Amino acid sequence: MPLWNVYHPVGAYSEEEKREFADLVTSLHEAAGLPRFYVVTLFHEVDRGSFYVGGEPADDVVRVAIDIFARDVDDPARRESFRHRIGAVITPFATAKGLRWEFHVDQTPRDLWMINGLVPPPPGSDAERLWANENRAIPY
Amino acid sequence: MPLWNVYHPVGAYSEEEKREFADLVTSLHEAAGLPRFYVVTLFHEVDRGSFYVGGEPADDVVRVAIDIFARDVDDPARRESFRHRIGAVITPFATAKGLRWEFHVDQTPRDLWMINGLVPPPPGSDAERLWANENRAIPY
Amino acid sequence: MPLWNVYHPVGAYSEEEKREFADLVTSLHEAAGLPRFYVVTLFHEVDRGSFYVGGEPADDVVRVAIDIFARDVDDPARRESFRHRIGAVITPFATAKGLRWEFHVDQTPRDLWMINGLVPPPPGSDAERLWANENRAIPY
Repeated sequence: MPLWNVYHPVGAYSEEEKREFADLVTSLHEAAGLPRFYVVTLFHEVDRGSFYVGGEPADDVVRVAIDIFARDVDDPARRESFRHRIGAVITPFATAKGLRWEFHVDQTPRDLWMINGLVPPPPGSDAERLWANENRAIPY
Repeated sequence: MPLWNVYHPVGAYSEEEKREFADLVTSLHEAAGLPRFYVVTLFHEVDRGSFYVGGEPADDVVRVAIDIFARDVDDPARRESFRHRIGAVITPFATAKGLRWEFHVDQTPRDLWMINGLVPPPPGSDAERLWANENRAIPY
Repeated sequence: MPLWNVYHPVGAYSEEEKREFADLVTSLHEAAGLPRFYVVTLFHEVDRGSFYVGGEPADDVVRVAIDIFARDVDDPARRESFRHRIGAVITPFATAKGLRWEFHVDQTPRDLWMINGLVPPPPGSDAERLWANENRAIPY
């Protein structure tokens, strides 16, 4: 976690653009102290005949569904800032290309989460910093 | 939001059927006052070898995962009614075609949601009515 | 419910392996008393150019997103056990194949859930046991 599922029109992004998009997504969460490899971004091409907005087929919309942990962002001011920072990540890959966009965030429990069989270290711990520095899961 | 992800067998729906299905989904939420363009319906074809129900490969099941906002439906009686109205939308596109089906709804926070860089207007506000009437996001 | 969405590299699994994986997923939840047909496992092949971990394209990661019901697992000790049992299901289909993996679980409301137009019976009820024994939804 976080997990970004990006549903987009066919051919909306080159591989280079997807990589840049995912890099910005990752940096957004890294800025909050997360190891980069925690952040997974999946791109899903959805053809016009399977992508409906308001009941109409759409090939000009990017719909992003994001899962983060509950309690990671609690304070109303930080939530508002977080919302706008997510929007700032998406804008160059949507608005700037003439695409409409929408995202929403879901918050899920941290204690039902696992990586490679390891319980990820507590936020702010030395072990988490080690994971961040090494950018991989290490037994601790 | 709402977001409907419809996982269905290969070839279960023609484009016309998907459009009708998405139109009914949209009308269900529009009846609660939502602008139509808030409602996104994505159809995902899943082949039998990737779709398992009870551990068995399945090509006769439609599995719908729905995200709505927390607090949009709070009252137990309204929740029960909402459940049955969702079921009534799916039935003609599943039971009537000999397909089994299942849906579940998740509820996510409204304050981590954004469309085209805009914070959507409060429920019941004049701005939301304008968005509904114009069926698009307008700075307010 | 539960619903497992398994995002995996292209060609990671044969059909037989997907079936075995889904069978173990199903048995995990069946052990908690659920009818087997409640458990849906969907496999989604994601190519390297659409699958980013830490902003880098990845073809060696399995990312699993699981939805279960809120309150099904409440007690901290049972949650910890549940986390490890999920990990034990994934390990042979990831670690053992040289793939990294991550899962997270979301918990959603039971009262916005429906199968084939029926409200599933209460947990632990005679009707639920009938559904489990018959492995199908039966009017009650």
